[in-house]
Amino acid sequence: MGHGTNRVEDMASPNNGTTAPATANARETIVEIHSVCLPPKKTAFQKLKKRFGDVFFPDDPLERFRNQTWRNRVILCLQSLFPIFTWGSQYDLKLLRSDVVSGLTIASLAIPQGISYAKLANLPPIVGLYSSFVPPLIYSVLGSSKHLAVGPVSIASLVMGSMLSESVSPTQDSILYLKLAFTSTFFAGLFQASLGLLRLGFVIDFLSKPTLIGFTAGAAVIVSLQQLKGLLGIVHFTGKMQFIPVMSSVFSHRSEWSWETILMGLGFLAILLTTRHISMRKPKLFWISAASPLASVVISTLLVFLIRNKTHAISFIGHLPKGLNPPSSNMLYFSGTHLALAIKTGIITGILSLTEGIAVGRTFASLKNYQVNGNKEMMAIGFMNMAGSCTSCYVTTGSFSRSAVNYNAGAKTAVSNIVMASAVLVTLLFLMPLFYYTPNLILAAIILTAVIGLIDYQAAYKLWKVDKFDFFTCMCSFFGVLLVSVPLGLAIAVGVSVLKILLHVTRPNTLEFGNIQGTQIYQSVKRYREASRIPGFLILAVESPIYFANSTYLQERILRWTREEEARIKENNGSTLKCIILDMTAVSSIDTNGIEALFELRRRLEKQSLQLVLVNPVGSVMEKLHKSKIIESLGLSGLYLTVGEAVADLSSTWKAHGQP
Amino acid sequence: MGHGTNRVEDMASPNNGTTAPATANARETIVEIHSVCLPPKKTAFQKLKKRFGDVFFPDDPLERFRNQTWRNRVILCLQSLFPIFTWGSQYDLKLLRSDVVSGLTIASLAIPQGISYAKLANLPPIVGLYSSFVPPLIYSVLGSSKHLAVGPVSIASLVMGSMLSESVSPTQDSILYLKLAFTSTFFAGLFQASLGLLRLGFVIDFLSKPTLIGFTAGAAVIVSLQQLKGLLGIVHFTGKMQFIPVMSSVFSHRSEWSWETILMGLGFLAILLTTRHISMRKPKLFWISAASPLASVVISTLLVFLIRNKTHAISFIGHLPKGLNPPSSNMLYFSGTHLALAIKTGIITGILSLTEGIAVGRTFASLKNYQVNGNKEMMAIGFMNMAGSCTSCYVTTGSFSRSAVNYNAGAKTAVSNIVMASAVLVTLLFLMPLFYYTPNLILAAIILTAVIGLIDYQAAYKLWKVDKFDFFTCMCSFFGVLLVSVPLGLAIAVGVSVLKILLHVTRPNTLEFGNIQGTQIYQSVKRYREASRIPGFLILAVESPIYFANSTYLQERILRWTREEEARIKENNGSTLKCIILDMTAVSSIDTNGIEALFELRRRLEKQSLQLVLVNPVGSVMEKLHKSKIIESLGLSGLYLTVGEAVADLSSTWKAHGQP
Repeated sequence: MGHGTNRVEDMASPNNGTTAPATANARETIVEIHSVCLPPKKTAFQKLKKRFGDVFFPDDPLERFRNQTWRNRVILCLQSLFPIFTWGSQYDLKLLRSDVVSGLTIASLAIPQGISYAKLANLPPIVGLYSSFVPPLIYSVLGSSKHLAVGPVSIASLVMGSMLSESVSPTQDSILYLKLAFTSTFFAGLFQASLGLLRLGFVIDFLSKPTLIGFTAGAAVIVSLQQLKGLLGIVHFTGKMQFIPVMSSVFSHRSEWSWETILMGLGFLAILLTTRHISMRKPKLFWISAASPLASVVISTLLVFLIRNKTHAISFIGHLPKGLNPPSSNMLYFSGTHLALAIKTGIITGILSLTEGIAVGRTFASLKNYQVNGNKEMMAIGFMNMAGSCTSCYVTTGSFSRSAVNYNAGAKTAVSNIVMASAVLVTLLFLMPLFYYTPNLILAAIILTAVIGLIDYQAAYKLWKVDKFDFFTCMCSFFGVLLVSVPLGLAIAVGVSVLKILLHVTRPNTLEFGNIQGTQIYQSVKRYREASRIPGFLILAVESPIYFANSTYLQERILRWTREEEARIKENNGSTLKCIILDMTAVSSIDTNGIEALFELRRRLEKQSLQLVLVNPVGSVMEKLHKSKIIESLGLSGLYLTVGEAVADLSSTWKAHGQP
Repeated sequence: MGHGTNRVEDMASPNNGTTAPATANARETIVEIHSVCLPPKKTAFQKLKKRFGDVFFPDDPLERFRNQTWRNRVILCLQSLFPIFTWGSQYDLKLLRSDVVSGLTIASLAIPQGISYAKLANLPPIVGLYSSFVPPLIYSVLGSSKHLAVGPVSIASLVMGSMLSESVSPTQDSILYLKLAFTSTFFAGLFQASLGLLRLGFVIDFLSKPTLIGFTAGAAVIVSLQQLKGLLGIVHFTGKMQFIPVMSSVFSHRSEWSWETILMGLGFLAILLTTRHISMRKPKLFWISAASPLASVVISTLLVFLIRNKTHAISFIGHLPKGLNPPSSNMLYFSGTHLALAIKTGIITGILSLTEGIAVGRTFASLKNYQVNGNKEMMAIGFMNMAGSCTSCYVTTGSFSRSAVNYNAGAKTAVSNIVMASAVLVTLLFLMPLFYYTPNLILAAIILTAVIGLIDYQAAYKLWKVDKFDFFTCMCSFFGVLLVSVPLGLAIAVGVSVLKILLHVTRPNTLEFGNIQGTQIYQSVKRYREASRIPGFLILAVESPIYFANSTYLQERILRWTREEEARIKENNGSTLKCIILDMTAVSSIDTNGIEALFELRRRLEKQSLQLVLVNPVGSVMEKLHKSKIIESLGLSGLYLTVGEAVADLSSTWKAHGQP
């Protein structure tokens, strides 16, 4: 060998001459060979610590505390626990004015939506208002988003309603149902807060965007179908959620359809959709769509009040109790047959509402260029729900539609949530009797208007264009939710996403590389026409970690590449194949199965008088190759830093030995 | 920009000048810039076809049929269905002699092992002999391994015994138990054959080597513990398999221990272990360990026969029916309460025996340098078990210990299996009464000797040294099997392995690259001391596909790299950071979440006046970047083929614009 030093050098030992020019006498060209280094030595504990840090503390939360006085550290700690301390001291009248305007705007939306969403969850309407009072107050102290408008949301309400009512009837067993709803809320909060505390926030990353697009659209369709009850005036409606039973229930109860309800419902629906359309086209007119639900509630209530003696076809809310949230901690339910159901419902609504809350928070934070800390948000939302479950609230989170209105109305800080909560407080204390004649149809129309915007067909079309597999995931999620059930549809979509990752690892790409003439660049011969094969070499790039799941496949695939290359050479009368170069740049990890596959591959290639050369293994791979002694078994000319150096060095060695 | 042409060129369009030398007037050095190509255009169908081929036909099974006459194709087809046609025509007397010697050798091992393993599965001993007769005959026609010795094996017997006896008592409900055993065998065969037919052979790759090492060791301990019943002469033994109940059962029945049994058992155990040790040290003396079980059976049977009137403490097999396998297709059980159990047992024993059979086949094929086709082997083993379930056999596969003896005894083809089956036939027809006085303790000693070799502590130690995580998987599997249950232990270990893949994708490595002076090589600055950072640039390499599961993390991590780099520059008074270069060489795939994360990253970096540049995206990634229009949004100087070209081109542009 031209270069005398062992090229596998240890960073711990003195390492002066890493580049060893080959002795020129035996070779035509002078080849500069760089050694492949081992990564700096680390103990198993250090590695574990780094890995642990990567998994749980990717944001390096203690970074800010370094190089600070103790006093500053205490302040920073308080600020990070209660973000209100960050902006509270700079709060002034100008900010307050913006927050009052936006707070009142979202209150006018939150009150009718709160009542409507509670009905979606099969809960008494008043629970929706309770849930718009306590949680926003808690969030304004703990949360780090400035624009998130907190309260009940459609998806979580729907999921809770559908999951609980499968086992317990909300009309016959209303007390038990209420207990289960609060218990689920408690577990949702506990789950959310634990994810944040244990820094397991990455769990929500497994709900990919395509999954969520499909899921949201599916849920929106289900929610819309449920509104047919209110819009058509049907009394005996199915308790099921899936497409087919709901449609058959709608048409089998045609005798219950009431033309007055339908007429009035469609009228208000048209008004609400028009105002929504106007606001979407001109964001400055956001107040039109923000005010229209409350206006519709007022007008429709008046209408029903006026015709109350003429017709009884239009159903209305009826009596609502006055007063603030009653405590409900005595209604939490920690034993008994339905506990498992409550925990399951809690986890699923918890993760869905968390995903929505964090996505909405991040969207608006990114628009105004500030940071929302995922783990901290999880704790804020979690504590808010745990507190909510003790004060007659059900699952709440940041709502997309109300947050958008909040943002457009000029909200500056979380004070807008406090203003909203105050408006709800006034409503709860004094205005409840006014809702007596509010017709159910208007609640249905409000929900329909809100959820129709969640069906994002344009996003689905873009998925189809860019990534067919993502579109497939999206469709799995959509039809799973629509035809099977909400949690199962979600599970199917997550399963499909994970399967994609596994499939990618199980069947990784291997590419044949060639040299782009006049350069040291090696690229795929299929993709770059100017890349040409080097006679005597087969250069393969493996595009995946080498794991148990693909080690056998890769070994067989590389042997097949060799067979095919030899057949090609035979056809073209080229020079015989002598060396297989494996470019390991993209092999980000290897396990013991992978190492064994490399050993076996080398053994089988040697039987065919072919040499195996590894190029540029990354740090962790290099370390394992070193520990398993495969480097030694490959010999001095079995490891190079670049493909170019390997080709140059090996060809000149062959020439020196008089081989063609 | 110095180079006028759009550098994102389409391979479909004529592409003459891919290298565009930069105009020298504005720059100090002439930078040669290579364009990044899109991969050749493919329709969605072509891509799906390629993907499908990669997943299901990685070995390109039709390769051999190309360029052949129809007659040859028919012959090749017959040969691939029945490998016996491949070697049958060249079979001669010399080969036969070798096969007869090895066949008789493995028969002397197979008969006592068959009886013993059947007891392990709680089946009548005779079923073990039946299973050593029909399946080897079928395998010799269908199988492609020359050295595999087929018959019952310890692991599959243990798993079947433990899973079935949890629900059905083998002593009280012996007929139902037998029915379930045959039905499980049928489903095991069906499952194995389907995996082969559907070319889903990669499923067994998910049982990684560390999982199998741990599982086998755990199962060996469990099997050994079960032998305490026979070795101590205990009559009332627990039906459970786990470590704790077995040990407590052993010590609570101390009164049943029989010293005669213990003495004789330990004596024979010592003999068997000694002969095994001798054969392991000198492989030429393989016949010593191969002959010792049968010899021990003969001697111990004689001993018991001689002292039959003096003591009744030593239990023996008793009456065994003479005659060939009775048909059992009428005992298959396709409805009723236990069907699910039978299917579950079938799938688990099926996959375990498949893994063992294929691993053993591959090991010996690799030693003699011939190919064993995984999918074909699966079909062979599957059909053998389906036929077995109709002829009173239970699950069989290639046994490691007997195949090793077969190999050492000089077996040349599958005819040695036929010879073995003939020897079993003679035994079944004429020699059964001779086993009347065979003591149970000798069966226990034979099993113990066989399974002790399966505890591969050296392999476990090597795992610890090379890969801590693989060692952890191995321990999960070992303790899971030992303390929880066989299928659950296996499931835990597979779960842990899959979790590792997901974790690796969820938290991928990012490295900071620097230039090795005087070269175009860019490498990790932490690993290569001679690699130095380039002022104004932050060069990051991402070592994983960018998926939904890591897109948020990567985005945050890259922004943190930027913050840290800026802090470092501030400390050292370096030149301001202007550009982030992402080396995408190792990003083997991207999905829509990943693309969105790149968009968002670019947006956020731009707000800090930092440029984002992508380098060398692989084909499929390039395609998606192109479709999603991110390339256009990055601008002309946002995409390069190598890091070196990006650095050179951007620095000269900055210089031309008079920036420092």
